[in-house]
Order: sequence, then structure tokens, then C-alpha cells
Amino acid sequence: MKSMTIIHVLFLFSLLSSIPHYSYASVNDFCVADLKGPDSPSGYNCKPVSAVTADDFVYSGLVAGDTNNTFKAALTSAFVTDFPAVNGLGVSAARLDIAKGGSIPMHTHPGATELLIMVEGEITAGFMTPFALYSKTLKPGDVFVFPQGQLHYQVNSGKKKATAFLAFSSANPGAQLLDLLLFGNALSSDIVAQTTFLDIDQVKKLKARFGGKNLSKHMSM
Amino acid sequence: MKSMTIIHVLFLFSLLSSIPHYSYASVNDFCVADLKGPDSPSGYNCKPVSAVTADDFVYSGLVAGDTNNTFKAALTSAFVTDFPAVNGLGVSAARLDIAKGGSIPMHTHPGATELLIMVEGEITAGFMTPFALYSKTLKPGDVFVFPQGQLHYQVNSGKKKATAFLAFSSANPGAQLLDLLLFGNALSSDIVAQTTFLDIDQVKKLKARFGGKNLSKHMSM
Amino acid sequence: MKSMTIIHVLFLFSLLSSIPHYSYASVNDFCVADLKGPDSPSGYNCKPVSAVTADDFVYSGLVAGDTNNTFKAALTSAFVTDFPAVNGLGVSAARLDIAKGGSIPMHTHPGATELLIMVEGEITAGFMTPFALYSKTLKPGDVFVFPQGQLHYQVNSGKKKATAFLAFSSANPGAQLLDLLLFGNALSSDIVAQTTFLDIDQVKKLKARFGGKNLSKHMSM
Amino acid sequence: MKSMTIIHVLFLFSLLSSIPHYSYASVNDFCVADLKGPDSPSGYNCKPVSAVTADDFVYSGLVAGDTNNTFKAALTSAFVTDFPAVNGLGVSAARLDIAKGGSIPMHTHPGATELLIMVEGEITAGFMTPFALYSKTLKPGDVFVFPQGQLHYQVNSGKKKATAFLAFSSANPGAQLLDLLLFGNALSSDIVAQTTFLDIDQVKKLKARFGGKNLSKHMSM
Amino acid sequence: MKSMTIIHVLFLFSLLSSIPHYSYASVNDFCVADLKGPDSPSGYNCKPVSAVTADDFVYSGLVAGDTNNTFKAALTSAFVTDFPAVNGLGVSAARLDIAKGGSIPMHTHPGATELLIMVEGEITAGFMTPFALYSKTLKPGDVFVFPQGQLHYQVNSGKKKATAFLAFSSANPGAQLLDLLLFGNALSSDIVAQTTFLDIDQVKKLKARFGGKNLSKHMSM
Amino acid sequence: MKSMTIIHVLFLFSLLSSIPHYSYASVNDFCVADLKGPDSPSGYNCKPVSAVTADDFVYSGLVAGDTNNTFKAALTSAFVTDFPAVNGLGVSAARLDIAKGGSIPMHTHPGATELLIMVEGEITAGFMTPFALYSKTLKPGDVFVFPQGQLHYQVNSGKKKATAFLAFSSANPGAQLLDLLLFGNALSSDIVAQTTFLDIDQVKKLKARFGGKNLSKHMSM
Repeated sequence: MKSMTIIHVLFLFSLLSSIPHYSYASVNDFCVADLKGPDSPSGYNCKPVSAVTADDFVYSGLVAGDTNNTFKAALTSAFVTDFPAVNGLGVSAARLDIAKGGSIPMHTHPGATELLIMVEGEITAGFMTPFALYSKTLKPGDVFVFPQGQLHYQVNSGKKKATAFLAFSSANPGAQLLDLLLFGNALSSDIVAQTTFLDIDQVKKLKARFGGKNLSKHMSM
Repeated sequence: MKSMTIIHVLFLFSLLSSIPHYSYASVNDFCVADLKGPDSPSGYNCKPVSAVTADDFVYSGLVAGDTNNTFKAALTSAFVTDFPAVNGLGVSAARLDIAKGGSIPMHTHPGATELLIMVEGEITAGFMTPFALYSKTLKPGDVFVFPQGQLHYQVNSGKKKATAFLAFSSANPGAQLLDLLLFGNALSSDIVAQTTFLDIDQVKKLKARFGGKNLSKHMSM
Repeated sequence: MKSMTIIHVLFLFSLLSSIPHYSYASVNDFCVADLKGPDSPSGYNCKPVSAVTADDFVYSGLVAGDTNNTFKAALTSAFVTDFPAVNGLGVSAARLDIAKGGSIPMHTHPGATELLIMVEGEITAGFMTPFALYSKTLKPGDVFVFPQGQLHYQVNSGKKKATAFLAFSSANPGAQLLDLLLFGNALSSDIVAQTTFLDIDQVKKLKARFGGKNLSKHMSM
Repeated sequence: MKSMTIIHVLFLFSLLSSIPHYSYASVNDFCVADLKGPDSPSGYNCKPVSAVTADDFVYSGLVAGDTNNTFKAALTSAFVTDFPAVNGLGVSAARLDIAKGGSIPMHTHPGATELLIMVEGEITAGFMTPFALYSKTLKPGDVFVFPQGQLHYQVNSGKKKATAFLAFSSANPGAQLLDLLLFGNALSSDIVAQTTFLDIDQVKKLKARFGGKNLSKHMSM
Repeated sequence: MKSMTIIHVLFLFSLLSSIPHYSYASVNDFCVADLKGPDSPSGYNCKPVSAVTADDFVYSGLVAGDTNNTFKAALTSAFVTDFPAVNGLGVSAARLDIAKGGSIPMHTHPGATELLIMVEGEITAGFMTPFALYSKTLKPGDVFVFPQGQLHYQVNSGKKKATAFLAFSSANPGAQLLDLLLFGNALSSDIVAQTTFLDIDQVKKLKARFGGKNLSKHMSM
Repeated sequence: MKSMTIIHVLFLFSLLSSIPHYSYASVNDFCVADLKGPDSPSGYNCKPVSAVTADDFVYSGLVAGDTNNTFKAALTSAFVTDFPAVNGLGVSAARLDIAKGGSIPMHTHPGATELLIMVEGEITAGFMTPFALYSKTLKPGDVFVFPQGQLHYQVNSGKKKATAFLAFSSANPGAQLLDLLLFGNALSSDIVAQTTFLDIDQVKKLKARFGGKNLSKHMSM
């Protein structure tokens, strides 16, 4: 069989073109992100295939998150920066845990559609367009879709904790909390009030809560 | 020359493959929208090429809009539903007129990046991410980019009227005003308050302004 | 406030361009599939927005599937043909239930990447390239990625039932079981043997099992 | 084995989700064009899978074309309008035959890259950017690439007939002959001269050759 | 409120996944081009978010261009190489100034659709397919679309200067002047004549004008 | 004419925006792969335009391959790793030579559609879905399409050698031989048998042939 193997390997070489001698040889089946390098519009550069192992294709972090915070909720992500193997593959995941009475506040994922797959408990969720509200109360067995970029929320409307898995149509969907966008940066209270029609006192109150002045020092990049 | 023309036409037939006898023959250069038919994820069906004229490729509506309203602003669009020829071409336009003291309130275009090209006056505009505000005061000669799906605003910060042209990276970018999303539909005041941390009185006040109860009857689709 | 509402609605009209009088008016935020019509390379045509309700955005079928079959496994899908709202959104879901000792045989999703999110039990899964096997034993909290089009399998390697949710980077990923591709149609045993190097007796045995001759009558479309 | 088949079929149903009862059920592997219907930005609607046979996947027309014309060349296409099965698949083909002394005049494929695969004879081909000419003399064994939308030409520079196969990165690349664009329609000689810097007499001479006035009656759509 | 802030920041960490410690952390909302690095099919690498400021999102160069040249026209661009923030966003802009009697000669943008938004004066513009001319005379308020890759021109057909803004469906549309493609490089006069049917004298005259021999030394890359 | 040239060059500068002084200046028409650098989801980085010559756009390797091997077939590729100029252009090519009695065994190209263009001899080819076999016997003049990711085969069913050219809808389609996926790596015989329903002896026999144990040492990356 040894000769067969040799012939086979030789054929393999001609079949798949000359195997490049570069460590970055692409076989185009996957592109595990090299997070030490820069991002680009299509994703990160690929780790050399020679450096990829089975461990790259599993992420072990989607365990229950800690809901002991102001929102009584936790979102644990498996985005490309957590799970480099999804780089360029157009999909990622996360886990949502909401304690009784908690909620994920209004937020968007600008470049991605989100699927919410119920596991436990009860969640009332919805998204809005300028014309309508699309909202449902969800239970295990349900999956809900929030189309790309739509403002949406999830509220634990049940009597116990709620758990769901999330899937996104992007390797790096991000999450933009509305309160951070409006009240968490250097945007002046006057402009926020003018462009949202909120009372100026309401704006100032929420800027204090969400660190409008402080965050602008800590986190403005 | 007549024989030349005949040979030429014969060649044309063989060169461009058999000319289809279907009225929907696509030559794939453009696809003027048939707005009487359904939309699809990639756009509308194409009008037959035989029905397309030069008039399809011009839209004459980007004249000054009427700013005599509560926002003192007007957005006049040339999206695919106005300008069918942009169907499937990944670009559209609009015109922005803001009177002195006016503004376009906080809004997003979920699926599109926006360019703002200043023509006249002064506009202060910006977008926000969870980490930062990116805002500039703009004058003629300036162009500003609002990346896809980001919450943004434009305020006339000058002493006279302001005018700008807008370009979008989509044939149908839409426009979602934040106040309509939060206060213009059937979303209960309790949930709005819980998911935005706004005071319930503030929510009710803005629902009244933006038709939260009325709109839900008129416009929920 | 009524005058405010009227002005507001008037502004809405100018803001969002003339509201088309067609029932297929696209607002481009979503495109719930009209499954009565044809498919296209980008997806199905959109149901008119006026016919879309919140119920379109939830699918209630991801409950435990019946594993009492030859594979001791069940895949319950939420693809576009089950869940029309994912049309054109680049994501879909499914649920995987594997009884003790069961497995999902070798299969591919030609146009989609798959994420497997463990919920319960233990699954050993992997995919193969011409150069390597990438395989892991998974437990709750783990998510595994099968890049687009790769041949892969999932085996219940634990002592009790196993459950996982699946996410795909396509609204309609399909599922192609290798045994059906090789042994479930009219492909002659000689050609199967020649192109797989399987013994002809093995081929005939599996064609009998997977309906090579029968299926060709029932299911060749 | 009958019971096996039944179980298998039952499993198939659950595995692949309920088989839709619509004749347009897409399994998303291919989308053979329904050329009787309209085109869209992503391609034609799909023929029902039930109506698709093996014959749809072969096109038998890439035989030698008739080069007995003014250009001494023939392009025989296998684009979607000839070969509906390539609909939405991002690739198509053609065959190029050039007699001794003949050529394909300057032309573009606006939306597609072209590969030229030499079979017989000698062809000198090239494309131009504003900065450079990229031109080679090609023989069998050579493949040349004309990037998307670039103006290019092919000339038989050998002593006998030349044959090549072409591949395109689009199902419907079209072919725009420069002489037809400039001289084959209703564009006035004055504007052609002004925008090309050609002498007006040259323009008129070529308009006569390429049917500038006649074609405008026959073919303006 | 300080404890609130701390809890909030802690939540932020869990909400948005661990903030990467890499300077290239992608938040996927934008990707300002690092023009010191290489280009790729999807665009340039992203500058680190920490190095991005509001100034990156404005380009101040779309002022009136100098039309005192042979074409009596100027095109001032805001493409990615001018305006790095449009990198990967699928849109860019430019400004067109044409003096009385001037024009932009025949040209294409191989990978992009162009919108022309009239600001001042009168421009007659059009594009051609092998079958038709689509041409209109435009005034302020008009927007015209030139579909991707089509050969087109713009002529000042009015009595005074004309100004328009341009939008493109690509961050880097380029501009290929036909006269440069045909007459500005090393392409031999014989081949130009053969593949365009122009008289050889006409070709030589225009090669002299457009630097066919000189440019090939200066600019062939 | 010298002054004309100078004015022209000056116009060129303003027309095409400031010519970047970076060696990586993108003109966006092509992106010849820098194979010394990493791959990314959209392709390799671009060689500087200044380093690109006409030789980059031709690949001279599509000559007859050596069919003196176990398969009596050869596939000679012009993928991006052979032909860097196709980088990012969505198309590539290959040549197929099958001696009498030979075949290309069952394989897939996960991310690409394949066109097979017959040149000489007779090939019987087909692909399979879970529902049907689509197979034809092909002769010169025929072109066959294998949609993206479908398992397929080609057999020389004639009396002499067969030759075909292949085109792909990707710059780097790869080729995954089924026998290598199942029998060429460290996947245990038990799991292969369980997930394919092959007899364990058949599995072991083929693992020996295709180097299941040996290859796992040589080639597992």
C-alpha cells in the first residue's frame, strides 16, 4: 500500500495545486482570526493553517452570566474577539440570562440580525419601526428574530430567571445600548434635549446615571 | 454600407448570444424597479428593458423642502420608491433643508451608511457609539460620514438656513426617528420606562406628542 | 396636541418620502417571505408590510424532536420555509436532539456555516478537511463552529440524551446527508464504487438501506 | 427493508423540516432561471425544483462560432439567458473563435471579471487602466485575467485560427463593444467629438459604419 | 451615583464581552483606513479605534475645483484615499465643476454606480449601452444615475458654470478616461486602429495629445 | 503639444484625486495577491501597483497534467495561490485530464460553483442532492454546472483521453476529496462507521488506502 500512498500524495499535490510554502497558505475553508493584527472590512487576517487546531473551533464560555447588576441581566458573547474561528463566517452567538424583574435595555446591533432562542423562563421582547411595534411574549421552544439594526429590548416577564441563546448574522455584531449612546458621552444636554424632545432635567439626570461626563474621560476613544 | 450594417447586426446577435424573445430580457446593466410588483431581499423586479427610457434615470425632486413644521426641517428623498432606477445599484440620495434653529432629531438608517455633503449654512452633526461621540460643525466644502446603522443627528447651528445633500450606501435606506420608535406605537409606557430608564411621566408626555396611542390605531401594520 | 400630531404625520410623509400606494411598499427593514411565490437567488418576495404582524417574527417549533428512529436523533429546523421572517436576513436556527447512542450522520450544509450551542448532555462533533480532522467533545457552555460547506457529524458520546441549538449563516442552509447523496438516488452502483473506492457489495447494501432505487421513484424532482 | 425506508423517509421529513407543499420550495442549492418571468438584482426567479432535470445543468452550444463576418470573430455565450442553470451562481462561460487576421474589438463587461483560457492558436490580448497597458501574447496552456469592467481587446496575432474559452465572475456579464457605445446610437456627432476629442469627420464615418442613425430607430429601448 | 457607575461599567464589561486588550480591537461599526498599510479586496486595514477622532469622519475638500485646464472642468474627489473613514462603507463622494463650454470626457467607473446631484447651472449627461443612449439635460433639483461600469459623459450645456455633487456606490470608484485608456499608454497605434476601427492617423494624432509615448514612461506602473 | 500634456497631467491629478504617495495606493481595479502576507476573508493583501506588470495577469500552467497515477486523472489549477492576479475577483480556473478508464472521485468545492467546459473526449459527470441525481454524458461543445458545494464526480466514459477546462466562482475554491475527508485523517474507524453506516471492515480497508493513520502524522495541521 506504500506505493499507493505515495502516488496518492503525489496526486494530492497536483490535485490541489502546488502546496504553497508560505505559512499563510490559504485553503479558504476557514480563516481563524489573528487578533494580534488589524481588523479590515471583511475581518481579521487568518492565522496560518499550520497553527490551527481543533481547540480553535470551540469556545467554552457560554455559561450562565452574573445577573447581579443594575439591569439584573447578563449578555455573554461568543463574537470573533472571543471566538476567533468565526472570523469571516457571518455568524456568532451569545447567551442571555435575565433574573426575575430584569431586562436588557433598548439597544441595536447596527450590522446584524439577531435570533433569540428561548431555553428557560419567559421573556417579552420586541422591536420597533417608525410604523409599528412587533412584540411577543416568548417561552421555551420559541425563536424570535430582530431584523438587522432595529432598536429592540428583552424583558423578563416571568416569575423566575430566564435564559436564551442568541445567534447573529455577523461575526462581530456589537451591542449599542441606547442609554449609553444618548447619555454616556460628551454630547451636550442641550443637543440631546433638542434632538430627542426630552426635558433637559431628564437628560441631565440620565447623564449622571450613565456617566455622561465621567465616561467621556474614561472611555472616549 | 448597408451590407456592413447587416453583417454588423448579425455579428451583434452572435456576439451577445441569442437575443431573448422575452420582454424581461436582462442585459444586467441596470434593473429599473417595477414598483407594482413585490420587493425581495435584493430589490424589486426589473421593468422590461423595452419599457425603459432616459426619463427613468433622472429624478427631479431634490428641490428645497418645506421646513415649516415642528422640526423646522425637511428631508426630501430619492430612494428607490421615488427613483426606481437606483434599484439594486447600492446607492441613493436625499436633500436636507434645516431652517434656523431647526434639527433632524436622533435617527438611524439600519442598513445604510450616510454621507452628508454641505451646500449652504452651518450644520452640527454627529453619531455615537457606546464608547464615544463623533461630532463636527460643518460648513460648505465639508462632507461627513455616518457609518451604517449608527444613531445620529443634525442640528442647524448657524444663523441662517442650512442645506445639504445626502448619499446612502443602499437604494432604500429608510429613516427611523428615535422618538417614533420609542413613543409612536403601542409599546406600553411601563416597558419604555423600564428599558430606557426614563421617568414614566416623561414617557407619557412624549407618547402624547408622538402619537403613541393614536398612531398605534392609524399606522400599526 | 392634535395639531402637533397632524404636523408630525405630515412631516413623516415628507421625511420618509411619499408613502407608496402599492401594497408591496418596501421599508427595507425586513422581508417576510411570501412562500406562495417563487424563490430567487436572494430569497423569496416580501409579503406586503400591511400583512405583517408580530406573529410573523416568532416561530414556536423548536421543541424537543422525536428521536425514535433509525438514527436516534432529530433535527427540528427554523429555516425560511418554516419561519418566513428570516427571509433575506442571513441567519436561521434549528434544534438537535440525540438520544443515547444516536448520531447525526455525515452531512454538509453547502452554503452555510453552522454553530452548535450545547444545552444538555455530551456531543462529540467534528469536521474534516483534506488535511485534518477538527473534532471536540462538547458539554453545556460550549459552542462549536463548522465552517461553510464542510462535511461534519455529531455523535452523542454521553450517557444520556443530548440537546443543542444550531445557528446557520443562511436563511435556508439545507442539510445534505452523505448516505442519501451516495446511496439514495439513481446513481449506479458501478459509478459509486468507482468514485468512492468502496466495494461494490458495500455500495449495493447501502443502496438497499437508503432507497437508492425506491427513492429515485419517490423523490427525484 | 421496507420499514427501514419508511423510517428513513419519516426521518427525512423531520430532518429537513416539513417539506413545503409549495411547488416553489427552495432547497437553496440551485435556482434554475425561469426566463419567462422578470429579472431582479440577484437574478431570475427559480423554476420549481419539481420541474428541474439533469438537462437543465448542461448547455450544448459552445461549439465553434461562425467567423465569417466583419470582425472575423465570433463569441458564443453560455450566459444565464442561454444556460438558465447558472442563475445566481456567479459564473458563466463563452467560447471565442478568431480567424486569422481577426479580432474582438475594444469592449467591457461592466459587472464581471473575465478569464481567457487558450485552446488553440495565438491571441494577443490586453486591458488598460489610466496608468498602464497590461498586454500579453498568449498560447495554449495560458490563462489571462481581465479584471472587472476594464476596457480590453483580443487580436489573433498568429498564422491560423485561434480558439479560447472564457469564464466570467457573473451569470450575466454582457459585452459592450466600444464602437457600439460611441457610434451605434442617437448620440450626436458633436457630443461624441467633444467628449472623445475625435475629429468630427471620423465620428461621422464610424456612425455610418455602426449604424448610429439606423440603430437608433431599430434598437433604442 | 458612583456605585451605580461602577456597577454600570462592570455590566458594560460583561455586556460587550471582555474588552480586548489589543489596540486593534474591532467594534465593527467603522474601519477608518490605515493608508500606510496595504489594500485588500475589501479595503484597507482599520486604524485602531483608540486612534480615531471626530476629525476622521469629516473631509473638508469638496470646494470648487480649478476649471482652468484643457477640459474646462474639475473633479474633486472624496474617495477612501482622500477620506479614509469611508473605508469598507460602500459609498464615497466627489464634486464636479464644469466651466461654460467644458465637459468631462467619456469615462467609466468600473466598479461603481454614480449619482449626479445638480447644484447649479445646466449639464447634459448620459450613458450608453450597446442598444441605446440614455441622456438628459439636467438642472438644479435633478439627480441622474449612471449604473455601474457604464461609459458616460457630462457636458456643460448652459450659459454659465455648472456644479454638481457626485455619490458613488464604492469607497474607491476610480475614474477611467477613455482617451487615456486608448491613447495614453504603450498600446500600438496599429492595435488601437484595428480594435476601434479608427483611422490610423486619428489614432496617432490622439496618442500625441494624450501622451501615448510619454505617459508610458512617466506613468506605467 | 507639451503644454497640452502638462495641463492634461495636471488635470489628471485633480481628476483622480491626489495621487497617494503610499506604495500601496489602491486604484481598486485589481488586487494582485501578495502571497507572502496573510490571507483574510476577502483575500490577500494587494501587491503595490508599482510592482505589478503584465506578467502578473497571465498564468502559463494550464497544460496537460500527468494522469499516470491511481486515479488516472490530473487536475491542474489556476487558483489564487497559483495565479495571484485573480485575488478578490471571484473567478479562477483549472484543467482536467482524465485518461481512459480514469475518474475524479467524489469531491466538493465548499465555497464555489464549478463549470466544466468539454474540450476533448467524453466525460460522464453529475452531482447529487438528497432528492435527486443530476448526471449527463458530455462531449465537446458541452458545458456543465455543479452548483456551489454539491458533491460531484467526473468519469471518463469514452474510449480515449478526455480533457476539459474548469471555471469556479471563487478565487480559491479548493477541492475536498470525499475519501480523504472520511479515510485520510485521525477520525476513528468506529465513528466513521457509525456516521456513514459503512461496515467497519470497509472503513479500515479504505483508511489503509488513503493514509488515515499515516496522513494524520504527516498532514494534520
